[in-house]
Amino acid sequence: MTDETLPAVQDFYPDHLARCFGCGRLNEHGYRLRTRWEGDETVTRFTPSPYHTAIPGFVYGGLLASLVDCHSTASGAAALYHAEGREYSDAAPAHRCVTGTLTVRFRRPTPLGPPLELRGRIVNVSGRKVTIESWVLVGAEVMVEADAVVIEVSDDFGARR
Amino acid sequence: MTDETLPAVQDFYPDHLARCFGCGRLNEHGYRLRTRWEGDETVTRFTPSPYHTAIPGFVYGGLLASLVDCHSTASGAAALYHAEGREYSDAAPAHRCVTGTLTVRFRRPTPLGPPLELRGRIVNVSGRKVTIESWVLVGAEVMVEADAVVIEVSDDFGARR
Repeated sequence: MTDETLPAVQDFYPDHLARCFGCGRLNEHGYRLRTRWEGDETVTRFTPSPYHTAIPGFVYGGLLASLVDCHSTASGAAALYHAEGREYSDAAPAHRCVTGTLTVRFRRPTPLGPPLELRGRIVNVSGRKVTIESWVLVGAEVMVEADAVVIEVSDDFGARR
Repeated sequence: MTDETLPAVQDFYPDHLARCFGCGRLNEHGYRLRTRWEGDETVTRFTPSPYHTAIPGFVYGGLLASLVDCHSTASGAAALYHAEGREYSDAAPAHRCVTGTLTVRFRRPTPLGPPLELRGRIVNVSGRKVTIESWVLVGAEVMVEADAVVIEVSDDFGARR
């Protein structure tokens, strides 16, 4: 079990790139997901609220897709730090990715109530593009499988608007 | 332009299957998406809130995936009514689907502010399984493309828990 007080990838997103509903530490309405390495896997944990339901008793699939999406962009950023031989930290440049393609396979209905654990593995890093495979687990059971291709954005992506 | 007061697929979900965060008319915290036929395409409209952001100025990808997810399950239900030679209505049995697999391709950053239009086309109906392709548009421009396979659930799916 990781200490949730340890640094997370999202802690080092520049302020103007830290407003994401899913994983921006500065979005007070959002989920504020935090993603970190555990060994060679990336991990994010989240406990849905009772209203995050689809069919009663089960988690809303759109939430699951959202969690996988942000877990994947954070995993991509983490991988880009590793590709430079370093860990996410205050040292510039920070890495921040957006999603190109996301595939989500809902393997079984995800029970609403227990904490969800998202785990990811880096499949490939090619320049600014990272491919990630990931899973949503309840306990040891895989509920959702996903593949994502994410792409690094330039630091001034948001600032330019 | 469709009259938004016209009946939508979700109006006829049984109460216990109408609690979905994305498209349940009985989920007061959710998006309450409403999906209907326009010709041979299914259409859902939604205007994001300012906090539904990813990078400033753009819509959060997790929201887009969520919208596509619910638009697809509703489109699947609409297609199952058509497969029976009827329209969605109070007449039983109602149709309600959940997502098996969802692929979302983010073609360009979706601007945050204008209304989003989701349009879908039924690719295939095979028993309880429906394949849908869909798009998220801002005006006439395609922002997101998606494919989904959805599966009908039994009427007592939620009630059994």
